[in-house]
Amino acid sequence: MKTLKKIILLLIFSGSVVQLSAQKASWIWYPGDFDIYMSNVMQNRRTERGSFFPVFWKMDSHYVLVDFHKEFNLSQPEEVKLFVEGTYNVKIDGQAISGFPKSIQIPAGKHKLSLKVYNQAHVPSIFVQGKTIVSDETWLSTFEDKEWIDASGKTSDKSGTTFVSAGSWNLNDPNQLPSQFKLPVIAQYAAKTEKTNNGSLSDFGKETFGFIKVHGLKGKGRLSIYYGESKEEALSIDKCETLDNLDIDLQQKKDSIMPLSKAFRYVNFQPGNGVSADSISMLYEYAPVTERGSFKSSDAELNKIYDVAKYTFHLNTREFFIDGIKRDRWVWSGDAYQSYLMNYYSFFDAPTVKRTLLAQRGKDPVTAHINTIMDYSFYWFLGIYDYYKFTGDQKFVQDIYPRMQSLMTYIDGRKNKNGLLEWMPGDWIFIDWADKLSKDGEVSFEQLLYARSLETMALCAKLANDTNGATQYDQQAKALKAKIFELYWNQQKSALVHSRINDKQTDNVTRYANMFGIFFDYFSPEQKLAVKENVLLNGKVAKITTPYMRFYELEALCAMGEQPYVLKEIKNYWGGMLKLGATSFWEEYNPEKKGTEHLEMYGRPFGKSLCHAWGASPIYLLGKYYLGVQPVTAGYKTYTIEPNLGGLAWMEGKVPTADGDISVYCSKKEIRVSSATGTGKLRFKSKSKPVVKNAEVKEISKGLFEVTIEKGRDYEVRYSG
Amino acid sequence: MKTLKKIILLLIFSGSVVQLSAQKASWIWYPGDFDIYMSNVMQNRRTERGSFFPVFWKMDSHYVLVDFHKEFNLSQPEEVKLFVEGTYNVKIDGQAISGFPKSIQIPAGKHKLSLKVYNQAHVPSIFVQGKTIVSDETWLSTFEDKEWIDASGKTSDKSGTTFVSAGSWNLNDPNQLPSQFKLPVIAQYAAKTEKTNNGSLSDFGKETFGFIKVHGLKGKGRLSIYYGESKEEALSIDKCETLDNLDIDLQQKKDSIMPLSKAFRYVNFQPGNGVSADSISMLYEYAPVTERGSFKSSDAELNKIYDVAKYTFHLNTREFFIDGIKRDRWVWSGDAYQSYLMNYYSFFDAPTVKRTLLAQRGKDPVTAHINTIMDYSFYWFLGIYDYYKFTGDQKFVQDIYPRMQSLMTYIDGRKNKNGLLEWMPGDWIFIDWADKLSKDGEVSFEQLLYARSLETMALCAKLANDTNGATQYDQQAKALKAKIFELYWNQQKSALVHSRINDKQTDNVTRYANMFGIFFDYFSPEQKLAVKENVLLNGKVAKITTPYMRFYELEALCAMGEQPYVLKEIKNYWGGMLKLGATSFWEEYNPEKKGTEHLEMYGRPFGKSLCHAWGASPIYLLGKYYLGVQPVTAGYKTYTIEPNLGGLAWMEGKVPTADGDISVYCSKKEIRVSSATGTGKLRFKSKSKPVVKNAEVKEISKGLFEVTIEKGRDYEVRYSG
Repeated sequence: MKTLKKIILLLIFSGSVVQLSAQKASWIWYPGDFDIYMSNVMQNRRTERGSFFPVFWKMDSHYVLVDFHKEFNLSQPEEVKLFVEGTYNVKIDGQAISGFPKSIQIPAGKHKLSLKVYNQAHVPSIFVQGKTIVSDETWLSTFEDKEWIDASGKTSDKSGTTFVSAGSWNLNDPNQLPSQFKLPVIAQYAAKTEKTNNGSLSDFGKETFGFIKVHGLKGKGRLSIYYGESKEEALSIDKCETLDNLDIDLQQKKDSIMPLSKAFRYVNFQPGNGVSADSISMLYEYAPVTERGSFKSSDAELNKIYDVAKYTFHLNTREFFIDGIKRDRWVWSGDAYQSYLMNYYSFFDAPTVKRTLLAQRGKDPVTAHINTIMDYSFYWFLGIYDYYKFTGDQKFVQDIYPRMQSLMTYIDGRKNKNGLLEWMPGDWIFIDWADKLSKDGEVSFEQLLYARSLETMALCAKLANDTNGATQYDQQAKALKAKIFELYWNQQKSALVHSRINDKQTDNVTRYANMFGIFFDYFSPEQKLAVKENVLLNGKVAKITTPYMRFYELEALCAMGEQPYVLKEIKNYWGGMLKLGATSFWEEYNPEKKGTEHLEMYGRPFGKSLCHAWGASPIYLLGKYYLGVQPVTAGYKTYTIEPNLGGLAWMEGKVPTADGDISVYCSKKEIRVSSATGTGKLRFKSKSKPVVKNAEVKEISKGLFEVTIEKGRDYEVRYSG
Repeated sequence: MKTLKKIILLLIFSGSVVQLSAQKASWIWYPGDFDIYMSNVMQNRRTERGSFFPVFWKMDSHYVLVDFHKEFNLSQPEEVKLFVEGTYNVKIDGQAISGFPKSIQIPAGKHKLSLKVYNQAHVPSIFVQGKTIVSDETWLSTFEDKEWIDASGKTSDKSGTTFVSAGSWNLNDPNQLPSQFKLPVIAQYAAKTEKTNNGSLSDFGKETFGFIKVHGLKGKGRLSIYYGESKEEALSIDKCETLDNLDIDLQQKKDSIMPLSKAFRYVNFQPGNGVSADSISMLYEYAPVTERGSFKSSDAELNKIYDVAKYTFHLNTREFFIDGIKRDRWVWSGDAYQSYLMNYYSFFDAPTVKRTLLAQRGKDPVTAHINTIMDYSFYWFLGIYDYYKFTGDQKFVQDIYPRMQSLMTYIDGRKNKNGLLEWMPGDWIFIDWADKLSKDGEVSFEQLLYARSLETMALCAKLANDTNGATQYDQQAKALKAKIFELYWNQQKSALVHSRINDKQTDNVTRYANMFGIFFDYFSPEQKLAVKENVLLNGKVAKITTPYMRFYELEALCAMGEQPYVLKEIKNYWGGMLKLGATSFWEEYNPEKKGTEHLEMYGRPFGKSLCHAWGASPIYLLGKYYLGVQPVTAGYKTYTIEPNLGGLAWMEGKVPTADGDISVYCSKKEIRVSSATGTGKLRFKSKSKPVVKNAEVKEISKGLFEVTIEKGRDYEVRYSG
């Protein structure tokens, strides 16, 4: 918005007569293609002890031949500059211009400008820059032209071409080709360096990510660099997860940057015989997102948890939302789904959500679940509806809806005789990293996610104007929900059982389906209370040891008003990691483990990721359930603020939205709110009638008060909490 | 076969102990991927007057991430060299080797060697060369590994991965990366050059194809080269179809090769002000296929027709079978289908057929007909069964069968309420280039091709061991055939009508469905005779003016024993082009046109291709219906030889097969046959009992005799024809 204003301002001051529609030109491509391409680039940067370690699922590719066009009505002729990544042709009103013009003249009047681009290696992309003609998402694109000519040269008058609006990442520099896209870097230095063997061990002070730069590298021989998220890992040259082994042949001293970025806190730098260097530093690589969300409270430990969570999340926010920075650096749908939610309470970076959703889904045909994981297909659907709810971006839902349909068709095609999903060859049923977690038979958790995904399909069908689809998905969702309660609800246990095997309920009760059932609002109030007591607060039901599932467990408890309990859990669990020296949050944390056991996973001594996106969930929980801000209708058109101190003396923070922030301060006596968006309802309990400056307060039920919040004003409430 | 023997011999002489399975290593890739990739490269070489002119249908892409593996049992350790196009890892028995090794040691015993390759720009490919371990089509490949690990690092034991055998083009040079693949060239010179304006006009003596080489190019300015299949075209700098416009800045004389190969006979070379050159020559670019088929007869004009047809066909046989060398240079399925048949009677180059079939089909999902043309989808199916019939290569049918299924599913999904196909948005109903040819309603020709394609599906389903599919497709084909006769056969006209509109037969009778009905053997003997008289030999039914449909028209007449009539037609039609100076056969030839009218098409004065593959059909007709050789069972295991002089005094020629040639000489008194394959039945008519050396002769019906031909022997028959 700011940029647009600036341009218009500039143009007004420079005296040019321009249309108000003047916009910044962007590189554009077939929607989703750059996302798929760039996710291939990013995900193929994984290495394991020097070996290339690509994903195991299908990697899709961009369309190699794409046609772009837009119609313009010019009041005067206009010179238009063309920048293209690929081999191309240019047509004005269907007439080709010879060669590969870099600039063309478009006459006044109504004209159609088309470019067709072929590029196998990179994404076919164009950047068009005239006074009023600019490339942006209003251009139309297609990967197949269903037009032809007859023997006389006449073009068919019955086109079957499907045009869709172009995709873009708002890359605004015509001289920077999309394929050259890189995240920014800044130089950083180790906090401490000590000599070890022939080399040195550097401690960068906390978990970080980037390229190691070797200053004054010289000589002939082998250079080895061992990376460690822990000191133990960096020193374990045989077992550290990532390393560089390079053969050096430099007669003169030269500063050299390692080819691949890595995650580390410690770097064990070992030049072999004949190789020397002056020092090392790093180029910290980061996503240029803005930290908009904030949280501060009377509890210093909680504040530290919030800060470390935000840092953990920022490190894992890259070209896409990835799982963890050391090992996979892949786009895992279940992990990303949590990142979306954390993002809405921190960066509110909508483009990264869209990119990640597009990259995960790839292209048709669907040959497997997303990441091959059944549950991960479902999170993908849920992520789209959440995206709409938080951003109000209906166009994206419409654009991606066909790809939602084809994934759901794939899933529907895998139902068993009971209309339920169970393992089939090629399916990974993940749920969580947990010992002895059964994946056999018809697992209730998967059916629950299936039902929720069908509800999502029904909602998105409506947004995409597919009325029949909406009805059909809605019916399918209702039928499945009814079946879930008929088949999995155990009256005696007052809980959903974990699974059915051979058409019979198993005895097993786990937390998964039960906690999701709560915040999906699938239970009756009585069932909800029973589930809370019998499952969530029941120490006998197997405990969760990953922050991944703790996210949902704590969310379920918050949704039932258990903020004081959850606050203690957050302090115990995340505070527990901090006490062990964590500078970012982990892939898994089991308080019962000791010492270097915390570093192990997957049967490898340093297999565990110590900086995992799903470790950052306090960002989300504190924003949504303590500051208590969440959208009611899409894009915060309406929303609620229900502050819950959960035992804190005071807290304050900001929740970002597309239009600006919502600020909340809350102590036991005072609530202050201001908002840059929509219409909010501030709700709070008070023992006596609260005093509100400049606004009315309603008592909507006994002891529960509500103030309507309009944007651009400050609200102050005095109450007795 | 020869190469294999040579290797084994060499190894025996060198005293090494090797397994007999020792083979030449090839570059391998995921099947179909290099075909798709290279067809993109080739088809994107089209230009029109200096503008890039790509295809309008969807271009697919290779899988960017591919896993290859094979298990070996080694009697002793072996060093294996690795060549890879892409970023890769190497695993022995699942254990990754660090870095990007170029050579590895594999221990004795049973081991699995795996390489996983990522390449966005080019096809992920490997070349593995050890003593016994070599990369070839026995390796397995996949684009998605459906395997995963649990938290302990244990790999899932229930894989859902589909492995298919790798693809190859038998590229045997490890240092020549597949992406560098190029057809060979040889230097050739103009027959005659004359000065024009500042430049020169060169006549290369006949239609040809390649890169123009400019000798001693020097200076600063514009160089223009105008290409012509005719002199008129080369001289028409405003209307010639292809040209080069280059900005030159050379201080020293330099020999320069033009970037894109072109089709031409005449080259109009025009250096602009400040630019000069000594001379031009060309690099003739060609497919290195062997001209195995041959035909010679007592008729010199027919011999010339055969030779020009073979040259025309060779020019259009490139990386794939293309339509014509000047303009499109694309892989059109209907054109290629005829090329396959011509190929079986000339080069017998099976790889080019496979490549072309794979390139046309591309990848799923199917979003349009092949080349967007309904009829062209059907020719694709027919081409696969023909391929099997001529080569006996069942494995290819099995490999491609899933892609046949998905294309047929797409087509089945487009049936109308009557179970028939008619135009839908995006469909091009081509049939032929012909004036006033109606494409409205339910066209009989399309239904006929649909029925034949379903029969093909049934046959291929059997070959691919899909028993249910075979039954289902067979039933579908039978039902459709019955419906065609019920709905389109007009008793009064004794012919199939052209179409139905609004559920009613039209009055229109065209040649298309009727001639295909003959060689599909869909008619009863009475219907066949009636169709021949009422349609094929009926001057009132609109004439065919493309060699494309003349192919089938003449085939239908040959199939009914009308060789004398067809011979006259061949001499008139193809001889007619020769009389007009053709050095290759044309896209269209209408004897009623005059002078430069013959060069026009698509509303452009030089729009017509003067070297079009479908112009070469005499190759096929003379081999199959005059020499009379055709397979009965797949791969010429059994076959027939039914020579038909059609009025010639004598003829002789060779028909190639996978195992060697079948030679036929036939005069009115003598037939000589020898064969390198299968078991043949030589059948001929004789007024008296024939004399056969070294073999028995049977009279199978009155005046019709049969001799069984075994391979490796010479047969001589004296008869009275």
